[in-house]
Amino acid sequence: MGGATLLSDLGTEIVIPICALIGIAFAVLQWLLVSKVKLSTASKNGITDPLVEEEDGVADHSVVRKCADIQAAISEGATSFLVTEYQYVGIFMIAFAILIFLFLGSVEGFSTESQPCTYDKTKLCKPALATAIFSTISFLLGAITSVVSGFLGMKIATYANARTTLEARKGVGKAFIVAFRSGAVMGFLLAANGLLVLYIAINLFKLYYGDDWQGLFESITGYGLGGSSMALFGRVGGGIYTKAADVGADLVGKVEQNIPEDDPRNPAVIADNVGDNVGDIAGMGSDLFGSYAESSCAALVVASISSFGINHDLTAILYPLLISSIGILVCLLTTLFATDFFEVKVVKEIEPALKKQLIISTILMTVGIAIVSWIGLPSSFTIYNFGEQKVVKSWQLFLCVAVGLWAGLIIGFVTEYYTSNAYSPVQDVADSCRTGAATNVIFGLALGYKSVIIPIFAITISIFVSFSFAAMYGIAVAALGMLSTIATGLAIDAYGPISDNAGGIAEMAGMSHSIRERTDALDAAGNTTAAIGKGFAIGSAALVSLALFGAFVSRAGISTVEVLTPKVFIGLIVGAMLPYWFSAMTMKSVGSAALKMVEEVRRQFNTIPGIMEGTTKPDYATCVKISTDASLKEMIPPGALVMLTPLIVGIFFGIETLSGVLAGALVSGVQIAISASNTGGAWDNAKKYIEAGASEHARTLGPKGSDAHKAAVIGDTVGDPLKDTSGPSLNILIKLMAVESLVFAPFFAVHGGLLFKIF
Amino acid sequence: MGGATLLSDLGTEIVIPICALIGIAFAVLQWLLVSKVKLSTASKNGITDPLVEEEDGVADHSVVRKCADIQAAISEGATSFLVTEYQYVGIFMIAFAILIFLFLGSVEGFSTESQPCTYDKTKLCKPALATAIFSTISFLLGAITSVVSGFLGMKIATYANARTTLEARKGVGKAFIVAFRSGAVMGFLLAANGLLVLYIAINLFKLYYGDDWQGLFESITGYGLGGSSMALFGRVGGGIYTKAADVGADLVGKVEQNIPEDDPRNPAVIADNVGDNVGDIAGMGSDLFGSYAESSCAALVVASISSFGINHDLTAILYPLLISSIGILVCLLTTLFATDFFEVKVVKEIEPALKKQLIISTILMTVGIAIVSWIGLPSSFTIYNFGEQKVVKSWQLFLCVAVGLWAGLIIGFVTEYYTSNAYSPVQDVADSCRTGAATNVIFGLALGYKSVIIPIFAITISIFVSFSFAAMYGIAVAALGMLSTIATGLAIDAYGPISDNAGGIAEMAGMSHSIRERTDALDAAGNTTAAIGKGFAIGSAALVSLALFGAFVSRAGISTVEVLTPKVFIGLIVGAMLPYWFSAMTMKSVGSAALKMVEEVRRQFNTIPGIMEGTTKPDYATCVKISTDASLKEMIPPGALVMLTPLIVGIFFGIETLSGVLAGALVSGVQIAISASNTGGAWDNAKKYIEAGASEHARTLGPKGSDAHKAAVIGDTVGDPLKDTSGPSLNILIKLMAVESLVFAPFFAVHGGLLFKIF
Repeated sequence: MGGATLLSDLGTEIVIPICALIGIAFAVLQWLLVSKVKLSTASKNGITDPLVEEEDGVADHSVVRKCADIQAAISEGATSFLVTEYQYVGIFMIAFAILIFLFLGSVEGFSTESQPCTYDKTKLCKPALATAIFSTISFLLGAITSVVSGFLGMKIATYANARTTLEARKGVGKAFIVAFRSGAVMGFLLAANGLLVLYIAINLFKLYYGDDWQGLFESITGYGLGGSSMALFGRVGGGIYTKAADVGADLVGKVEQNIPEDDPRNPAVIADNVGDNVGDIAGMGSDLFGSYAESSCAALVVASISSFGINHDLTAILYPLLISSIGILVCLLTTLFATDFFEVKVVKEIEPALKKQLIISTILMTVGIAIVSWIGLPSSFTIYNFGEQKVVKSWQLFLCVAVGLWAGLIIGFVTEYYTSNAYSPVQDVADSCRTGAATNVIFGLALGYKSVIIPIFAITISIFVSFSFAAMYGIAVAALGMLSTIATGLAIDAYGPISDNAGGIAEMAGMSHSIRERTDALDAAGNTTAAIGKGFAIGSAALVSLALFGAFVSRAGISTVEVLTPKVFIGLIVGAMLPYWFSAMTMKSVGSAALKMVEEVRRQFNTIPGIMEGTTKPDYATCVKISTDASLKEMIPPGALVMLTPLIVGIFFGIETLSGVLAGALVSGVQIAISASNTGGAWDNAKKYIEAGASEHARTLGPKGSDAHKAAVIGDTVGDPLKDTSGPSLNILIKLMAVESLVFAPFFAVHGGLLFKIF
Repeated sequence: MGGATLLSDLGTEIVIPICALIGIAFAVLQWLLVSKVKLSTASKNGITDPLVEEEDGVADHSVVRKCADIQAAISEGATSFLVTEYQYVGIFMIAFAILIFLFLGSVEGFSTESQPCTYDKTKLCKPALATAIFSTISFLLGAITSVVSGFLGMKIATYANARTTLEARKGVGKAFIVAFRSGAVMGFLLAANGLLVLYIAINLFKLYYGDDWQGLFESITGYGLGGSSMALFGRVGGGIYTKAADVGADLVGKVEQNIPEDDPRNPAVIADNVGDNVGDIAGMGSDLFGSYAESSCAALVVASISSFGINHDLTAILYPLLISSIGILVCLLTTLFATDFFEVKVVKEIEPALKKQLIISTILMTVGIAIVSWIGLPSSFTIYNFGEQKVVKSWQLFLCVAVGLWAGLIIGFVTEYYTSNAYSPVQDVADSCRTGAATNVIFGLALGYKSVIIPIFAITISIFVSFSFAAMYGIAVAALGMLSTIATGLAIDAYGPISDNAGGIAEMAGMSHSIRERTDALDAAGNTTAAIGKGFAIGSAALVSLALFGAFVSRAGISTVEVLTPKVFIGLIVGAMLPYWFSAMTMKSVGSAALKMVEEVRRQFNTIPGIMEGTTKPDYATCVKISTDASLKEMIPPGALVMLTPLIVGIFFGIETLSGVLAGALVSGVQIAISASNTGGAWDNAKKYIEAGASEHARTLGPKGSDAHKAAVIGDTVGDPLKDTSGPSLNILIKLMAVESLVFAPFFAVHGGLLFKIF
């Protein structure tokens, strides 16, 4: 029905890798441009550069050397942490890979014989053993790609931070370009890599699977699981690391010793800056890669049992990859608007420039989706919908992707409204600091709760539209739509921590106040973009996990998830509880690790003579070690909770209860995630609002050190674990449980529900 | 099937009212005992009482007069607030009653002709117009009973508080008895009234309905809706009132002026004490009455379409009322253990005495349930279960009720563990104050999140057991089981605010330090019992709303609530968001009202000369007015959100989406409610732990005024709106939306889902 696609299969096979390679080439180009800023002090560079205008301390060699030293320390700390983290997680990944193989292989008793296909008993499909082997392989592939994404992102960020500082001497515009280009390197590398690896894996797996596309794409789901498992540990470990250091540094430095943020006399300052790179950069990268991989896998696995898969229509089934391919081109064009077509000259142009990136990429991408839907889809086709085939028109699928894309933009803007200090919500929170920390905390929590309303309606409308048009496939492509501009999203997201680090380096290198002001302005915009990035991550996670949930239900062979049965309802209520359990663990972890950090920092201030006078260097390494040890130890219990829950529920309580758990965790987790991340962002910017004192109102609350400011600092500290540890990790909780259930679905269908079988 | 019940219908008709009357008589007796403590200073009483031992200031007439004055001020403030509140709400109630009549009447176009019954088309049932009329009547009855419950509770509490203070002069044991007896007056009056009114309403309605029991009990559901609507405004209005005053008083008094709590120089001190009575007493009373009424209605309406109703087995269908009747007798016996069989002599016996109440009542009630199930049920019967009849044995129903009862006890103990400062969780929170308010808030939030785990599992097990045995009827009777000891639960719950007030009066009357210490000890135990009471309220709310939800689905005529349909899923996710929206409103309201209070208190301190020296009386009335105005104004938006959501969703989106909303709000709201109330309780007791300095560890954190104590006060203040406004109101949110949907179900079934009908 509906005829063939305009784009030939061969065309698809060429377009996808070419777009991926263009993305990588663009990333390399951006990197080359960033690398033009020299950190060495060899005389032929730097001051002889004809482009350099005469500005603050450009000729000062010792500053460049200091920056290079600090950058090296940060990079070293981050690298050493990530390597250690990956070693720990690597062991776990191998163990889990073995588990996948054993569980999935046991479905048909490790038989090597082909079996009748699920949906067409007259044909033979590959044995469950093959699914076991290929799922394991794709799991490991996903994990490795995730590691590469996170690690490269961190490397680029630590390469760029000192360069941003140095460029800030020449003006805010130049610094912005360096930070933004570096973010783009990460964004494009990640988007292109994710696409390329998935493309190659599909083509290689096809050599074995041939026409058994259902088996092929079911095995590919391991890719999403691998990516997300890695992301879980990255987010949780990195989140605990960065916030233990940040909270610890602030509590002693800012509150007790009254020294500014990022002061080199603070022993935890290097750990704090390392944290930004391992948490906000590497963790975020892994997280969004996971979302991307999962939404692609969810779409592919649903499509494989729809007319695309049954008719072996390659272009149509690879539609999700085509969307991502065109997304890379769109983001490339969008980036040029920030770096080449327009130029940021003054501070107040920074935030609009970043916001324009979101708007431009969304508008362009809408056209891109239309084109891909036109050439990459038959005009009409059928989609599997829990036991029946539903007829979908190509324009309907276009709407599904587009509604996801635009919902992302709306979530972004709402997040900005609630977390930027240009608007009244954050100003109200700042104002409540007048009566102390308690009202600040009350108002901040209320703000976070309130900020969920519109994003939830945006997600709800996306779900309703895409679900009505194209069932679970619609949801999956809506998620892909939201993530289609991931390269741009990540670029503006990574820009934040890079600017934050740049400010830290300026402070530590003892650069002038005017340079610190420039990096602070970059950083303030970065706080808002970080919140927007988290909004995207959460919104897409909600859609992705619903799509995965639907795919799980299909694959597990149940056709209904009825709330009013005891098995499902108990799952629902326990699932809704899991985000609380998980948040309790992560917040307590940050709290305890921060207490250890506080003790160490206090100890150094008390026992190392000359530290406050700046004559003796503090012992940075011990603080780095405390953060490292704490995060590696503390990431295990929450990680285990997320990874084991689907297995335990599936094995002992069965598929129905597991369905309830997934639905409950999804609808409850998304609310806490949004509110936690916005509350934290708002507190952070309320503090910045008072510090900056840019308006009449702000000046009545300040200056730094006033009672209102002290109250604001308390709010900011409470917000740290909310916005950077527990909040963003919750995305992964809901996605990961869903994708894990999907991968293990055949096993649960055969061996699950032991408890109910016994009683 | 299963034969008749051992208890004859006539026996049932006699037993229920007799038990209710016994309850009322017992309450009157307790009140008489409390009234023996004289507040007047006429010479024939007081000091000539031969029972009075020689203790602190017993002979001091001026103290008695002062206490009487303060009590009069509190009582007057509370009465005037409640009367104003009831006037406002009364207008709303009448409007809503008209709405009920119009909506339900329109189902069959206001036809006065009898219609074929839903489940047996060969018989004629009463017209929808009758349902409309009788639902409206029972709605108003429920609202009035709720008003009476709250108002009487407040009157008794304000009658008892000064008497408790005066008795504290004679020793902690005597004060305990007065406070506890007064709580019992409220508990028994409420339980007995609720039962009696329901019993009379059923018998009167039966005069019209005759054999149409389905119509009869469907109309009776209005009773639950009326009770709960009133409770909503009581909880929200009272909650905002009490916390605006409390937070406002603390922020200026304790933090800025460094004067103790309840100091008579604080202008907000009377408002604060009034707040305890209108929020924690009247609000709590209305809330628990609502739960009781709703769980009875849910059980009755399900039973009416089961074999009880079809066979017109009066004793069996009134089983829920029999459970409540025996509950009154059990609680009566239990009370004697605290007041007569044993005596509290020293401070450390208080908390065990209250805990024993819970344990004794639970054990006795288990026997009581067994007896009622034996004599009040046929040995086997059928229960309606979404379109089919399920066979249930009487011992299975016994287990359903018992599992609810014992789950309540478990929730109570877990709540105690997480909120009493005798255990490590609160001590850890107190310890985190060492590093300031930020870590205190982080640890407190984490504690609250963690404290949901076991209660949720307890609720889950109750649901699974009762659902498996007897479908929705099982859930309803499990909720009744949890509430069967409501008289005792309310007694120990009301005891808390009475003691709190007693302490306030002692402070304001300038009584000696040793008396204040005694009332403080009573109050500390009261904090924990208040948290336990909230645990019960939330747990029972979860069960009740599930039962109501099930009854709604049956009555609306849909047989399945399938998560994986767009209509249901969007409801689920929006429903899960509602508790956040609601909490944002209530917390913001408390925050804004507190800010107004702070300004007024500051103004008085700054402009009234002699206020700090105690030579001039502050202007208490203005503060009372601020709390009153703020709470009346601010209770409307959250109230409207809860009351209008089911109507809007039902009318525009239809029954399926509304089902999703109810399930989502239930599973999400119960978590926030538990965590909010435990977090707040823990912060309160962490502060008390530092203040009391009873252990070596506590003394390293204190004394009052230390940095750690200041940090603890901030946590306590943040916790106030969480534990006394938004947390407990959420119970009502989930119950009320469910009962409202149930009442309007026939209307939605006929006229609902407009939007989907149009598109």
